[in-house]
Amino acid sequence: MLVVMRTQATEDQVRQVVDTIESMGLRAHPIPGAQRTAIGITGNTGAIDALTFELLPGVAEAIRVSKPYKLVSREVKPDRTIVKVGQVEIGGGDLVVIAGPCSVESREQTFAVANAIDRYGIKLFRGGAYKPRTSPYSFQGHAEEGLKILAEVRDVYSMAIVTEAIDNESLDLVEKYADMIQIGARNMQNFSLLRRAGQCRKPVMLKRGMSATLEEFLMAAEYIMAEGNYQVVLCERGIRTFTDYTRNTLDLSIIPAVQKLSHLPIIVDPSHGTGRREQVTPMSRAGIAVGADGVMVEVHCQPERALSDGPQALLPSMLGELVQQLKEIHQVVTNLAVSVR
Amino acid sequence: MLVVMRTQATEDQVRQVVDTIESMGLRAHPIPGAQRTAIGITGNTGAIDALTFELLPGVAEAIRVSKPYKLVSREVKPDRTIVKVGQVEIGGGDLVVIAGPCSVESREQTFAVANAIDRYGIKLFRGGAYKPRTSPYSFQGHAEEGLKILAEVRDVYSMAIVTEAIDNESLDLVEKYADMIQIGARNMQNFSLLRRAGQCRKPVMLKRGMSATLEEFLMAAEYIMAEGNYQVVLCERGIRTFTDYTRNTLDLSIIPAVQKLSHLPIIVDPSHGTGRREQVTPMSRAGIAVGADGVMVEVHCQPERALSDGPQALLPSMLGELVQQLKEIHQVVTNLAVSVR
Amino acid sequence: MLVVMRTQATEDQVRQVVDTIESMGLRAHPIPGAQRTAIGITGNTGAIDALTFELLPGVAEAIRVSKPYKLVSREVKPDRTIVKVGQVEIGGGDLVVIAGPCSVESREQTFAVANAIDRYGIKLFRGGAYKPRTSPYSFQGHAEEGLKILAEVRDVYSMAIVTEAIDNESLDLVEKYADMIQIGARNMQNFSLLRRAGQCRKPVMLKRGMSATLEEFLMAAEYIMAEGNYQVVLCERGIRTFTDYTRNTLDLSIIPAVQKLSHLPIIVDPSHGTGRREQVTPMSRAGIAVGADGVMVEVHCQPERALSDGPQALLPSMLGELVQQLKEIHQVVTNLAVSVR
Amino acid sequence: MLVVMRTQATEDQVRQVVDTIESMGLRAHPIPGAQRTAIGITGNTGAIDALTFELLPGVAEAIRVSKPYKLVSREVKPDRTIVKVGQVEIGGGDLVVIAGPCSVESREQTFAVANAIDRYGIKLFRGGAYKPRTSPYSFQGHAEEGLKILAEVRDVYSMAIVTEAIDNESLDLVEKYADMIQIGARNMQNFSLLRRAGQCRKPVMLKRGMSATLEEFLMAAEYIMAEGNYQVVLCERGIRTFTDYTRNTLDLSIIPAVQKLSHLPIIVDPSHGTGRREQVTPMSRAGIAVGADGVMVEVHCQPERALSDGPQALLPSMLGELVQQLKEIHQVVTNLAVSVR
Repeated sequence: MLVVMRTQATEDQVRQVVDTIESMGLRAHPIPGAQRTAIGITGNTGAIDALTFELLPGVAEAIRVSKPYKLVSREVKPDRTIVKVGQVEIGGGDLVVIAGPCSVESREQTFAVANAIDRYGIKLFRGGAYKPRTSPYSFQGHAEEGLKILAEVRDVYSMAIVTEAIDNESLDLVEKYADMIQIGARNMQNFSLLRRAGQCRKPVMLKRGMSATLEEFLMAAEYIMAEGNYQVVLCERGIRTFTDYTRNTLDLSIIPAVQKLSHLPIIVDPSHGTGRREQVTPMSRAGIAVGADGVMVEVHCQPERALSDGPQALLPSMLGELVQQLKEIHQVVTNLAVSVR
Repeated sequence: MLVVMRTQATEDQVRQVVDTIESMGLRAHPIPGAQRTAIGITGNTGAIDALTFELLPGVAEAIRVSKPYKLVSREVKPDRTIVKVGQVEIGGGDLVVIAGPCSVESREQTFAVANAIDRYGIKLFRGGAYKPRTSPYSFQGHAEEGLKILAEVRDVYSMAIVTEAIDNESLDLVEKYADMIQIGARNMQNFSLLRRAGQCRKPVMLKRGMSATLEEFLMAAEYIMAEGNYQVVLCERGIRTFTDYTRNTLDLSIIPAVQKLSHLPIIVDPSHGTGRREQVTPMSRAGIAVGADGVMVEVHCQPERALSDGPQALLPSMLGELVQQLKEIHQVVTNLAVSVR
Repeated sequence: MLVVMRTQATEDQVRQVVDTIESMGLRAHPIPGAQRTAIGITGNTGAIDALTFELLPGVAEAIRVSKPYKLVSREVKPDRTIVKVGQVEIGGGDLVVIAGPCSVESREQTFAVANAIDRYGIKLFRGGAYKPRTSPYSFQGHAEEGLKILAEVRDVYSMAIVTEAIDNESLDLVEKYADMIQIGARNMQNFSLLRRAGQCRKPVMLKRGMSATLEEFLMAAEYIMAEGNYQVVLCERGIRTFTDYTRNTLDLSIIPAVQKLSHLPIIVDPSHGTGRREQVTPMSRAGIAVGADGVMVEVHCQPERALSDGPQALLPSMLGELVQQLKEIHQVVTNLAVSVR
Repeated sequence: MLVVMRTQATEDQVRQVVDTIESMGLRAHPIPGAQRTAIGITGNTGAIDALTFELLPGVAEAIRVSKPYKLVSREVKPDRTIVKVGQVEIGGGDLVVIAGPCSVESREQTFAVANAIDRYGIKLFRGGAYKPRTSPYSFQGHAEEGLKILAEVRDVYSMAIVTEAIDNESLDLVEKYADMIQIGARNMQNFSLLRRAGQCRKPVMLKRGMSATLEEFLMAAEYIMAEGNYQVVLCERGIRTFTDYTRNTLDLSIIPAVQKLSHLPIIVDPSHGTGRREQVTPMSRAGIAVGADGVMVEVHCQPERALSDGPQALLPSMLGELVQQLKEIHQVVTNLAVSVR
């Protein structure tokens, strides 16, 4: 159920609706929009009578939500969400490029990458301090030491930090040191972790699971939002198919599908999505051309020595070229969007 | 084995190599390049001694081909192939847009589409006279009557005709009436049909099978080329995966993968690749952004009445918008290509 | 539409219904059952009035068929179909084992296999004279020479012959020499070939395409039956998935699904379904345990020298063990079936 | 590296090897076998000199392990592992049937199922107290209350309890109340949870992820074993493919593949693997026929009222039939195994 307030509804009227919802043992999610506020209701097991709310002052209407996802849904919030991370707005029409190494391997390596990409206007820096690895014997990240290095990068280069949390313990630390919490593909249905991320006050980047359907992906975001954290950015990073020339199959057609159903921003990760350096730039262009809000790419100064995922890392100079190409494609897409409207 | 001639080799020297190959019971495929001619050898079951050819006059070297595909391979022919259909060159750097209805349903419907899209500069018209349908009880196309309608469209609108052949009988007729023979996804490994297409003197558009690997796709093209028809254009049209919001998953990452391994042009069919009208334009943009040579899209004046695949057909006005958008994206990609070199 | 005759309906009454159907420009498919005859109607594009038939003498009722497949459907024919090939009945409760080499490589090799497996009671011999191969440069089969060798095997060992046809030309010859016509996975949607097989008077083994859904599989059988050939056996041979330890994923759950919807027999091909010798015996056991009507396996006396698919071929002695195991499993399943009823 | 002790090696000699390993900063995993003890070494980043160990008293040889998984590997431990849960041995040749409701919905419902299935000799009871659900608004399980109900079932019916843990917190409680800890498919690569399970002293049932390769599956088990818990049972529960008639595709060919590479027991879950009641019995038969150590199935007395996964639940009477059928199939497979050896 979604309670839509009138345009001129007062804060008191909104509060009264929230109180009414909570007095019924349910949960209220006020969603301020450009024109009016709506209040999502979750926690009900059966139907609720719309009249209960429509008779309250300031309420325009109370509507049943037809999708299994509610807070994620564009039905509930037609305006696209803008997620602010550091100085960057994701979802507001700007081209967003997140870059950095796969793993924080050392202070030297991390600063080398940060220094090399700073010149290309990168304002969001990625790098893993906790690495979910297929083998228990592979490098698993430097944990808090890694997070401290990332925090230093922020101070020196004024880049906001995006980094992955893999369990509740690491999430506490990521929340403390970083600007945006990444939930990785393998944890997309780690519902316990999603709930914990929903209790954070920092924005969350949620990567699509390797075999997640669209609905499962949106429902994972719903888990985060249902706990009260509405700052969620989705990320397509490739699905598992039978193909053999890329590590995964980057499924760009999910971008328009998500944008139709949800107000959340969505970006593309062509590094994991293809697993091959030479595919990163063309597939990034394709991602922006299809309408994604940005890309996240991996960069390493010496990919052949990387402790993880070297074959998919761009060299810093290739990032410069990538950014230039994306700007031009983004300009075309932006102009088209304007001329169409 | 590939016999590479010297730049200044004469036609007589080429002929002598061909004769030598044929005298060994093998097949020779002279492949003229921008700088020099190469001669592919097929039909050998064991290894051939390179010296047999390297001692002949005009021969630069004889090299073993490391891939299972030979004629298709960029090792054998580094220059990209340009396939000419009517006035259009596919693979030469121009933006190619093939458009038309899924099926030729009637003279009126076909001409209505042709007339409506003519204004957008379309020079290649598609339309099916033979329709491979899942059900034997569905509309199967008007066969030769349909081909005649298409031939009329060519005469009236100066558009070259691309249409599908589904067996040897229909291929005879398609070869007679059309300008380019399409082999559909379901027939990608109908090797008998591929061989027959290889004996045609008209260019062939080969669509990727729904679950074809890259190697299987290239090997299917090799079947056509091994018979002597080198005018082959590949077409990505979506693979079958677990996803549920598109009919197939358009796998754009095969474009750079094909371009790395093969000299053949490759285009994208986002109509079948997504099965949804609202995805066709964004995924077409993505296809051109990633570097495809063109797109093939379906258009219908009354999609809700279409006898096949109505939900994926664009309206003519949407095609106009699509072409405009693709031109701008193509311009960016072309400039990038120039500036990179 | 399906016209169901009364139990005591006469042949004349059946004929009158058929005549009525044909006079409407439609096609009649009389389907004799154990208790009564039903007459399927195909060719109609719109609805037909049931009363047209229910008023004819001998008609019990005329019912709308709810599935897109009709002749294939268990709605239309509740009794399971038994397909007779040589002395063997497929679908009638007997355990069916079809065995033989992947390819007919030579008279010697083929007879060596036939001789070696004869002792295990094999009554259906498989072997390819036309081989659909990924590469045009691979061994493609000995064509009519191969068929002649197979016909000799039949004469010498009293085994019926199952062999693949790949186009209309080869089908003419296969129909002439063999006892059962195989349509391979790559041709499952070669509708032209399916139609031609439907015009044969020999039984057809239809293999599931690598990415065929259940409906597509049944509709392919419908193509054959719609032409009048009702002797169709389905064969599951593995689907393409992301897995890496088998060549394909043998999808045994399609067996109960087919048996619920269709009256056609279905067997399993674990040789292609797994591509690995050591998997053939356990997966054959599983196929019979799940309820398949039989298995088709590849056998070679010297797999390491096979011209095709050696790694999946059983040695003759392994076939003996396989047959023994399947008999015991089959006995259990048969007893269960009896005790359940 | 694996250090294999001589048959007659003493405990002191084993201890000396362990001490040597640990003095190098590495981790020692003594693996007692039927004939001799082996000691796995993990934690090394580079190669270790075999001589370091081969010169120690009691050491037969030190061998390099060729697979990325070590403790899981049959190279390291050729004897199959037997995991004991309550009175039941999994992996020792007995037929194992785990049954119970999807969720513990109430004391009444849980006891009703336990009571109804007790007569069929079930000794392992399953039931979820923590339910990972796609939607945050679906029933999530009764948590500790549910675990208490399960513990009561154990006391009353002498069945050991298998139940899922979804995070570190729930694992603490599951470890306390249950006999076997289940890690679900969605958490197969929740490495933090795997590590925590590896620190338990209770056996673990590890379900295959929906898109996990064989190597990823075995590596997930390696995470658990690397922490010192060697009591791991694998469970195939279906992979995600394009098919539409089952919820997942139960991939039985992984059973022989696992048994070739690993000594760990493996069972099959046809309830989640197919998602359809009518498939559970035939696919269970197939699972036992292929050689699995057991099955895990869901049972509900009123499936139409189940709070989760009702459509796949067997009725208690169907379980009786299932057990009977599996016993007969298992008998055949056991006899075969004996006669083959």
